[in-house]
Amino acid sequence: MDIFEALFTRRSIRSFTAEGVSEEDLDMVLRAAMAAPSAHNSQPWHFVVVRDEEVRKAVAARHPYAKMAADAPVVIVVCANPAECKEEGFWQQDCSAALENILLAARGKNLGTVWCGMHPMEDRVEPVREILGIPAGINILGLVVMGHPAQPFRKVDRYKAEKIHFDRW
Amino acid sequence: MDIFEALFTRRSIRSFTAEGVSEEDLDMVLRAAMAAPSAHNSQPWHFVVVRDEEVRKAVAARHPYAKMAADAPVVIVVCANPAECKEEGFWQQDCSAALENILLAARGKNLGTVWCGMHPMEDRVEPVREILGIPAGINILGLVVMGHPAQPFRKVDRYKAEKIHFDRW
Repeated sequence: MDIFEALFTRRSIRSFTAEGVSEEDLDMVLRAAMAAPSAHNSQPWHFVVVRDEEVRKAVAARHPYAKMAADAPVVIVVCANPAECKEEGFWQQDCSAALENILLAARGKNLGTVWCGMHPMEDRVEPVREILGIPAGINILGLVVMGHPAQPFRKVDRYKAEKIHFDRW
Repeated sequence: MDIFEALFTRRSIRSFTAEGVSEEDLDMVLRAAMAAPSAHNSQPWHFVVVRDEEVRKAVAARHPYAKMAADAPVVIVVCANPAECKEEGFWQQDCSAALENILLAARGKNLGTVWCGMHPMEDRVEPVREILGIPAGINILGLVVMGHPAQPFRKVDRYKAEKIHFDRW
């Protein structure tokens, strides 16, 4: 798939078919995540891939905007280990770049995704930490629900000229 | 260009030719930025596009890792207006997704880029705010230096199996 088709037809998919995600597609998506840039190339990200239905249902029950995690075949929770950061303060940016790569790589495989925000909302982070056994020192950015879409991809135009400033604000 | 070629051959480019960036390519890159997801679809991002050489040189002189901004034809500073956020706490993630889209769209046009981090380092944010006249209430995430590369793109393998956890940490 062309890079621009992927960029311009990616949208949040919240409804999924019963079809599973292949190991090959999942591997490609995770490789894409790790191809992201990071501050000082420190790559502090970690990925908890949840296929287990009971675990997905537990996550869905505790995150207010991730109900679809119960029915989609895969959930990926994107974390960072601060001990792997060469400079503090950039882990959110590193993990967000990796997460965006997940969404685009999934689109390239015709998989649907939705990014469910967690950090800095403690009431979304801590239940997922408990369910997945993520250690206290590990940061949790957010999660992606992924599967074969039961709703269409389509081009969404979010362009707004007034967001662009030339040479100064 | 295939989405996976873009994802896997994007790397930081810090050396640029004298060739300028066309209006068409710049427009496509900015459209890609605004195609990113954002929390509650609030799209709080703003982009200051700097082509003026004197302004680029001023930025290069004040950011410790953006010396190449003096010689590349375009710098894009990625900002967020908190007043446009529907929920606080997600602007860094929104802007990082937009910034990653800039890097990938540029790769799709054979333009080189490097992401120079700024937030939360006040000594990098405030000088650029002053130079570009960015109001005090506007957040500044980071900047992208962009141009035609004077060094090759190549596949970089950052894959580490130990970063992947299955069903729990």
